[in-house]
Amino acid sequence: MGQAGCKGLYQSLFDYKTEKYVIAKNKKVGLLYRLLQVSILTYLVVWVFLVKKCYQDTDTSLQSSIITKVKGVTFTNTSELGERLWDVADYVIPPQGENVFFVITNLVVTPNQRQETCAESESIPDALCYEDSDCPPGEPVVAGNGVRTGRCLWAGSEQKGTCEIFAWCPVETKSRPAKPLLGKAEDFTVYIKNFIRFPKFNFSKTNVLDTTDRAFLKSCKFGPKDPYCPIFRLGSVVSWTGSSFQEIAVQGGVIGIQIEWDCDLDRAPSECYPRYYFNRLDNRFSENSLSSGYNFRFAKYYRDAAGVELRTLFKAYGIRFDVMVNGKGSFFCDLVLIYFIKKSHFYRDKKYEEVRDLEVLARMAESSQQSGPGPAGLAEQPEVQDGVGAQENGCVCRQLLQPASITR
Amino acid sequence: MGQAGCKGLYQSLFDYKTEKYVIAKNKKVGLLYRLLQVSILTYLVVWVFLVKKCYQDTDTSLQSSIITKVKGVTFTNTSELGERLWDVADYVIPPQGENVFFVITNLVVTPNQRQETCAESESIPDALCYEDSDCPPGEPVVAGNGVRTGRCLWAGSEQKGTCEIFAWCPVETKSRPAKPLLGKAEDFTVYIKNFIRFPKFNFSKTNVLDTTDRAFLKSCKFGPKDPYCPIFRLGSVVSWTGSSFQEIAVQGGVIGIQIEWDCDLDRAPSECYPRYYFNRLDNRFSENSLSSGYNFRFAKYYRDAAGVELRTLFKAYGIRFDVMVNGKGSFFCDLVLIYFIKKSHFYRDKKYEEVRDLEVLARMAESSQQSGPGPAGLAEQPEVQDGVGAQENGCVCRQLLQPASITR
Amino acid sequence: MGQAGCKGLYQSLFDYKTEKYVIAKNKKVGLLYRLLQVSILTYLVVWVFLVKKCYQDTDTSLQSSIITKVKGVTFTNTSELGERLWDVADYVIPPQGENVFFVITNLVVTPNQRQETCAESESIPDALCYEDSDCPPGEPVVAGNGVRTGRCLWAGSEQKGTCEIFAWCPVETKSRPAKPLLGKAEDFTVYIKNFIRFPKFNFSKTNVLDTTDRAFLKSCKFGPKDPYCPIFRLGSVVSWTGSSFQEIAVQGGVIGIQIEWDCDLDRAPSECYPRYYFNRLDNRFSENSLSSGYNFRFAKYYRDAAGVELRTLFKAYGIRFDVMVNGKGSFFCDLVLIYFIKKSHFYRDKKYEEVRDLEVLARMAESSQQSGPGPAGLAEQPEVQDGVGAQENGCVCRQLLQPASITR
Repeated sequence: MGQAGCKGLYQSLFDYKTEKYVIAKNKKVGLLYRLLQVSILTYLVVWVFLVKKCYQDTDTSLQSSIITKVKGVTFTNTSELGERLWDVADYVIPPQGENVFFVITNLVVTPNQRQETCAESESIPDALCYEDSDCPPGEPVVAGNGVRTGRCLWAGSEQKGTCEIFAWCPVETKSRPAKPLLGKAEDFTVYIKNFIRFPKFNFSKTNVLDTTDRAFLKSCKFGPKDPYCPIFRLGSVVSWTGSSFQEIAVQGGVIGIQIEWDCDLDRAPSECYPRYYFNRLDNRFSENSLSSGYNFRFAKYYRDAAGVELRTLFKAYGIRFDVMVNGKGSFFCDLVLIYFIKKSHFYRDKKYEEVRDLEVLARMAESSQQSGPGPAGLAEQPEVQDGVGAQENGCVCRQLLQPASITR
Repeated sequence: MGQAGCKGLYQSLFDYKTEKYVIAKNKKVGLLYRLLQVSILTYLVVWVFLVKKCYQDTDTSLQSSIITKVKGVTFTNTSELGERLWDVADYVIPPQGENVFFVITNLVVTPNQRQETCAESESIPDALCYEDSDCPPGEPVVAGNGVRTGRCLWAGSEQKGTCEIFAWCPVETKSRPAKPLLGKAEDFTVYIKNFIRFPKFNFSKTNVLDTTDRAFLKSCKFGPKDPYCPIFRLGSVVSWTGSSFQEIAVQGGVIGIQIEWDCDLDRAPSECYPRYYFNRLDNRFSENSLSSGYNFRFAKYYRDAAGVELRTLFKAYGIRFDVMVNGKGSFFCDLVLIYFIKKSHFYRDKKYEEVRDLEVLARMAESSQQSGPGPAGLAEQPEVQDGVGAQENGCVCRQLLQPASITR
Repeated sequence: MGQAGCKGLYQSLFDYKTEKYVIAKNKKVGLLYRLLQVSILTYLVVWVFLVKKCYQDTDTSLQSSIITKVKGVTFTNTSELGERLWDVADYVIPPQGENVFFVITNLVVTPNQRQETCAESESIPDALCYEDSDCPPGEPVVAGNGVRTGRCLWAGSEQKGTCEIFAWCPVETKSRPAKPLLGKAEDFTVYIKNFIRFPKFNFSKTNVLDTTDRAFLKSCKFGPKDPYCPIFRLGSVVSWTGSSFQEIAVQGGVIGIQIEWDCDLDRAPSECYPRYYFNRLDNRFSENSLSSGYNFRFAKYYRDAAGVELRTLFKAYGIRFDVMVNGKGSFFCDLVLIYFIKKSHFYRDKKYEEVRDLEVLARMAESSQQSGPGPAGLAEQPEVQDGVGAQENGCVCRQLLQPASITR
C-alpha cells in the first residue's frame, strides 16, 4: 500500500485508522443532530419497511394461463344467408378459447365462389381497361382478386370496362353493412378463467371465486357489484374503454383486457385477487380508413355434387379481445433479514466498544487527543446507505438474498 | 458556496479539506481492522466476481421461436363416427405447430346439425315451459342454443316441456364420455424445436442436438437418459407435472412446458443447453366443475347434395400445451472493466500520494497534527460501494457500460 | 446506544458529533481537489442528465396490438389441383391477422382421402413386412399413417411389402416439390399495423404515418426511401435477413420482425417512431433435415354426395412471420426532481450554517481547533451517491418517485 519502505509498510500494516470527531456539548445543536438521525430512522422504518414493504421478497416471473369461453346466440335474416342462427362455433375465431379471441360483429358474405373467369371489381383502379391490350394475360391485378386472362369486359354500353380475371368468382363487391349484422353480440358474455402461479413461492391462484355456491358463476356478471365474478358482458367491456359497442361493431376494433395481480403473500390467500383494466388498442381516432378498425377475410370450403370445390368468402369485422396478465407476488423473505438487522445493531455496538477500547489506547498513546464515542458517523452512514439501497432496489430482501434477480 | 464574503470565498476556493485521522499503534486493533478490510475484499473477489460472475455482461432480451410437431395415430369406434382413424391433421388444433397447441383427448360429437327448429335441451333451466306463452318468440334462451319460436314442446305425456327454438338442430344433448375417446394420445409424441438468439452477442442456438447421427432424432425420447432429445411423450409430460394422463384426458387441462436457457457464453457453445420444466396450469383442485378442465366447441361445415349447409359440432376436451421460453446469456463484457479496476487501484495510489504531500504540507502548517496515511476510509469506501452497487445490479459490467439497461 | 450509564447516556444524547477536518492552504493541492469535485459534477450533469437523460421517468410496460394484412394473388397449374388461383383466404393461416402469421409457399397435396384400408407408405421403416404375421392387427405403425389390419401387401412381384393399414387413404406419398409452388409469394405484401400505448403517460401512437394523403398507403413500400410506410414486400423482408426467398420458400422458415419503440416523450409525438429489425428465427444452417425448415399438415374436410366424409390433406411449407414489439417511453418526471435538486442545495447550505455555528461553539470550547467550512466531504458525498444511484437505476426520477418500479 503505497511507496513506503518494506519495514514501514510492515509497521503500518497493523495500525488502525479512524476519523477524528468533534463533540459539541450544546443542547440546541445536539437536538437538531438527533432529530436528523431520528427522521432518517423514521423514514427507514415507515417508508421502506411499512409502506414499501421492503422486507419482502418479490417474484415477478409470473406463470399464467388463460381460458376464455364466449356464450350467446343471435338470429339474423339476410338475403345472402337467409334465416340463420349464430352460435359460439360460428362467430368465435379461433375456437380454442385462448387469451386472444375474436367475435364477429359484422360480415360481408360472398357465397358460392368458384375457380373460373369473371370481371374484376370496378373499385380496383388497376383493373380498368379500354381494350383487350390493357389486360396482359397472366398478370395479376395489383390489389385485386385474380390474374388477367387478356380480355377487357364492358358492362353495358360504357366505354370503360374491367379486365376479365381468373379468380374465385364472383368477386367480392358488396360493401360493409352500415348496421352491424351481429349487433346483439353486445349481450354476449365471456368467461375468462385465469390461473396464475408464482414459481418462487409455489403459490397458485385463479380469478374464479372459490365458492361453494355453484349457481354463483351461472348468474353473476362482472361489475362494481361483483368484482370477483370473471364473467364479462361484451357490451360493458367495450363501454368501459370509452367506446360505443354499436360503433365498434360496424368496422371492428381491438380491446385489451389487462389482469393485474399484485399479491402480498404474507396475508391470507383470499386477499390476493386480480384487478381488471380495459383499453381500446386500435387507432380509433384515425381518419384514415386504411388504418382504423379490424377485419379479415376467411373462407369455408365445400364441394358440390360433382365434386368441384367452391367456397363462401367472409370478410369479418369484429372485436378482437387481447387478455394480458401481469403481476408480482411479494413474500416475507425469511429470517436472514431479521438476523441481519439484529446483527447490524450488534455489529455497531461492537464497533462502539472497539472504539472505546481505542479511545483508551489513544489516550494512553497521546493524551492530547479529543475524546468522543468514535466513528459514529461511519457507523451511521452504512445504515443510511442501506436505506438508499433498499429504496433503489425496491427491497432490502432482494438486495440481500438474490442480488442478481433484478436482471430478469 | 455559502454566505462567506467574496474575498473569503476566493481564498477558501483552493483549500483542500480532508478528514483528520487517528492512528492507533496497537497490533490487536490493527489486526482486527485489517481483517475487516481483507474480508470485504475477499467478499468482493469471491462472491461478486467468482460466484456471481459479475464481470460479465448480460443479455436478457432473448429472441426465440418455437416449432412444435405432434406425431401419432389412434383408432376409435363409436356410434356417432363409426370406425375412425385419427391423425395429426384431425386432433391437433391449430395445425400450425406454434408454441401453444391443443391435442384432443375426448369428444362430444353432434353430427348433421342444420338450421331449423327443434326442442331446446332439457338441461337448460331457462328453456323449461308449461305453455306457449312461456316461450316469447324471437327471444334467445339464456345460456341456450337458439332463439325461441313461441311454441312449447312436450316430450311424451309430461306436464313440463321445453321451448321450441330455431337453432343448429338437433342440439347437443350428450354428456362427456367418462372414458377418454383418445386415451391412447398418451403415447403420442411432440417434437419441440426451439431456436434462440441473443441479439446483443449475435449468438444463436437450438435445443436440437447437433449430431451427425440422423437416426438419433428418429428414435430418441426426452428423459433422464436423453436430456438433449427434444421429443416428448405426452403421457410422460403429464406425469412429470404430477397428474394422471387418463384423468386429465377426460375433462382436459393446460400444461406449461418451460424452456430455460441460462448460458455462460464465455464457455463453449456446447455448454449452453436448455433446461425443461413442466407444470399444470389449470385449476385441477377445484371442486367447481365450471372452473376446472379445458374444452371448447368447434364445427366442421358441409353442404348436402341440395347445397344446404350442415355442420358437425364437436365439443373437444383435451390438453393445451403452452411452451414458454426464457433465459439470459452472459458474456465477459470487455476490457473496459479490467481497465477500470486497474485504474481504480492506480487512482487510489494517486490519492495516497496526494495525501502524503498533504501530510507534509499539513505538518509544515501546524506541526501539532497527527500524521497518517490519510483518507483511507474515504479511499476504501468507494470500493465497498462498488461492491454493493455490483451486488444490487447483479453485475459490475452492466453498471459500468449500460447503466440504463436494467430498465428493459 | 452502548453500555454507558443512564446519566452519561442522557448527557451524550444531545451531543453533536462531526468529523474533524484538515484544511490545507495550498493552491496546488486545492486546485486538484476542486478539479476532482468539478469533474464529478460535470460527470453528473453531462452523463447522467444530458446523455442518459436520467431526469426522465421511464415506462417499460408497453401495451401493444398488432394487426397484419397480407395482400397478393398468384396462379398455379398442377396435376392435383388443376388451374387454381390463390388468394389471401387460401394461403394465409390463421386468417385473423394477428402478430404471428404463416404464408404458404410450397405444398404437398393428397386429395380425396377417405377412411378405408390401403398400403402404408414404403418410406416408413416400421411398415415393411414379409408376411402377414409382420403386421399385428390393431397396432399403429410407428411414425406412420394408420393402424395395421393384419395383412401384408406386396406391390408387384417383390418379396418385401408394406402392411395394410386402416387410415385416411390413399396415404401421403409425394415428396416436397423442389421448386416452390407459390414462389411468386415473393411479391406479396403485408401491412403491419402496430398500435402502442404507454399506460403510465397515457400516450398512444401507431406506426402508420398520420397523413392526409390517402393514396400514400395504397402505393408505398417500406424501405430506405419510405421508413414510415408499414407495408412490407415479403421478398424484401426475407432478403433483409440475409436469406434467399426462393430457398426459404422450398422448405419453409421462420422470420422475426421486431418493432422497437424508444420514445423520448419530452419531444414532439412525431419524433416517436418505430424502428424495424428483421431476423431469421429457424435453424437454417443445420444439415439435419429433421431440424430445418417449417411445415405442418392440415386438412379440408368435405362430404361426397352420399354423405361420406373425405378430406384433402395439405402438407404446407412456408414462412411464418413473428412480429414482436418492444420499447420504452421516457418522460420528464415532474417538478419533484427540480424541487429536490434545489432542496438539496438549500439543505447543504443549511448544513454549512449549522456547521458554522458549530465552529463557533467548537472554538469557544477548545480554541486549538482548526477552523473550516465543516463536513463538506459529508455534504458532497450524498450528491455523488445520488449520481451513482441514478446511474445504477438508469434514472434519478424513478429512484425518487417509484423506488419499487424496477421490480417489474
